[in-house]
Amino acid sequence: MILAVTLNPALDVTYHVPGVDWAGVNRPAVTGARAGGKGLNVARTLRAIGAGVQVAGLAGGVAGEQLLSALGELGIPASFTRIGGETRRTFAVVDTARGSTAVFNEPGPRVGQDEYTEFCVRYEKALAGCAAVVLSGSLPPGLPPGTYAELGSMAAAAGVPALLDAHGEALLRGAAARPAIVKPNLAELEALAGRSLSTARGADQGAVALAARELMATGPQAVVVTLGAGGLWAVTGDGSWRAVPAADVSGNPTGAGDAVAAGLVHGLVLGRPWEERLRHAAALGAATAAAPVAGEFSPADYAQALAGIRVSRGEAR
Amino acid sequence: MILAVTLNPALDVTYHVPGVDWAGVNRPAVTGARAGGKGLNVARTLRAIGAGVQVAGLAGGVAGEQLLSALGELGIPASFTRIGGETRRTFAVVDTARGSTAVFNEPGPRVGQDEYTEFCVRYEKALAGCAAVVLSGSLPPGLPPGTYAELGSMAAAAGVPALLDAHGEALLRGAAARPAIVKPNLAELEALAGRSLSTARGADQGAVALAARELMATGPQAVVVTLGAGGLWAVTGDGSWRAVPAADVSGNPTGAGDAVAAGLVHGLVLGRPWEERLRHAAALGAATAAAPVAGEFSPADYAQALAGIRVSRGEAR
Repeated sequence: MILAVTLNPALDVTYHVPGVDWAGVNRPAVTGARAGGKGLNVARTLRAIGAGVQVAGLAGGVAGEQLLSALGELGIPASFTRIGGETRRTFAVVDTARGSTAVFNEPGPRVGQDEYTEFCVRYEKALAGCAAVVLSGSLPPGLPPGTYAELGSMAAAAGVPALLDAHGEALLRGAAARPAIVKPNLAELEALAGRSLSTARGADQGAVALAARELMATGPQAVVVTLGAGGLWAVTGDGSWRAVPAADVSGNPTGAGDAVAAGLVHGLVLGRPWEERLRHAAALGAATAAAPVAGEFSPADYAQALAGIRVSRGEAR
Repeated sequence: MILAVTLNPALDVTYHVPGVDWAGVNRPAVTGARAGGKGLNVARTLRAIGAGVQVAGLAGGVAGEQLLSALGELGIPASFTRIGGETRRTFAVVDTARGSTAVFNEPGPRVGQDEYTEFCVRYEKALAGCAAVVLSGSLPPGLPPGTYAELGSMAAAAGVPALLDAHGEALLRGAAARPAIVKPNLAELEALAGRSLSTARGADQGAVALAARELMATGPQAVVVTLGAGGLWAVTGDGSWRAVPAADVSGNPTGAGDAVAAGLVHGLVLGRPWEERLRHAAALGAATAAAPVAGEFSPADYAQALAGIRVSRGEAR
């Protein structure tokens, strides 16, 4: 069983509008609200690849009720702490004529210290039966940037390896708690490094490798950087690796990073060697980017992507 | 007491984003949800100018609860019929860098025949104590386009004059029920007329006058057309009138038409002559357009606009 933590889940609302008037009135068709947020995307992917998964998080208000009922329909076991604030919504406006999507992520409800303490009690209990834990997504207002470091230390104390997918101060502090894997994307790694890691043609492999090794030196046992269509760059105790999809990954990147996280933690639990772990993770990311709905993928796309991934030892310095 | 009907109210959510990325991820500051929809804007304006007002409508779900509690805080008496569906949200994205606003209006919940019947019982009861009724805004899914005609006829049977502010088929049918005033805007009048009523420099007064007289011939006792910065054009049993603000009205047009409706129905109830009625209505519209929050206005702006409005007999043909 893998535990996916989602401290700031969301009800994702999507509007479809052909030709948005960004300075006027639009009358969108609304698709029903869907349980979202990075932790839930990870859980959905894990479930889709047949891994046992449960979710722990915070939820409140009517949106929180809707979220829990959506999780129930998905058949994913959930241990949520009720909070006084209302679970946030995200809005995605899909311009079906232009093929572009604007996403609006609300910050989330303020979480009180007592609510967080109650969550920690449930989290510790859930850890006891788990083979790994994924800590991912933004922290809601009220939770300090050291939150993931604390949850990572609790996991370590319970002998449960952790994958951390966060950004900024929460990532930096969480990395120092020595998780098994941290999984920044290029923008997050650039923000940590305080410098650009790209050239006009995309990610600069040498610069990414250097920044990943710098992050590795702060504590984590492995760093896997998601480079979008450029695949993955991994720095591990077993050396560096690069995993590149066969073809350009086009489509909707939302949730692709979460699918990579799911593939990485699944490989960790299965004891797959890094080469295989990265191959599956990169294929899940590519298949998810190719799917029309964020955070989902078709098994056929997964199989096809898996066949096309090239994994090589990375020597860039 | 004036009754404002709102069959498809909304919780208005506003996001403020400096420089929206319309093809990417935005992290907006969220202002609290506000009770909205045309009927509630009319009620708020009536309350602000000291008129007695109550609201009747349909509300459901958590959003409906929030809406009723917001109305309670405003101190506006409300008689709502609970429905099984969830009250809609509207979502406005204010680009604080570009000064533009995109609005997304959800269609609203489906209303059942039994729910509408229950509303009609309450509506009829509320009419008994009222001097006028305002029927405004979109109809939610499930209510036929003849709904406003029916509510207008019930008002007429109770001896209560009605102001109708709707569009398309609902306006056309409602107009045939002989309301005291219909208040289309230029786009709504153009849609009814089936032709453009504008030149490159704005509304074509002669064409507007002709289309307003055509609409008048279908039943209503007066037609007042809102022309945005161009003020109002009225065709009444007492002749035609034009009301023009002194200066260009700039700002946020959302809710300005509702303020005009409030001014018109207030003037009707007070027995003001048309010239005065139009002067106040145009001033309320201009003051509302000048306010930063949709549907509100400052008394100083109202007083200043009132001093500047020019009302003249309209002779355009």
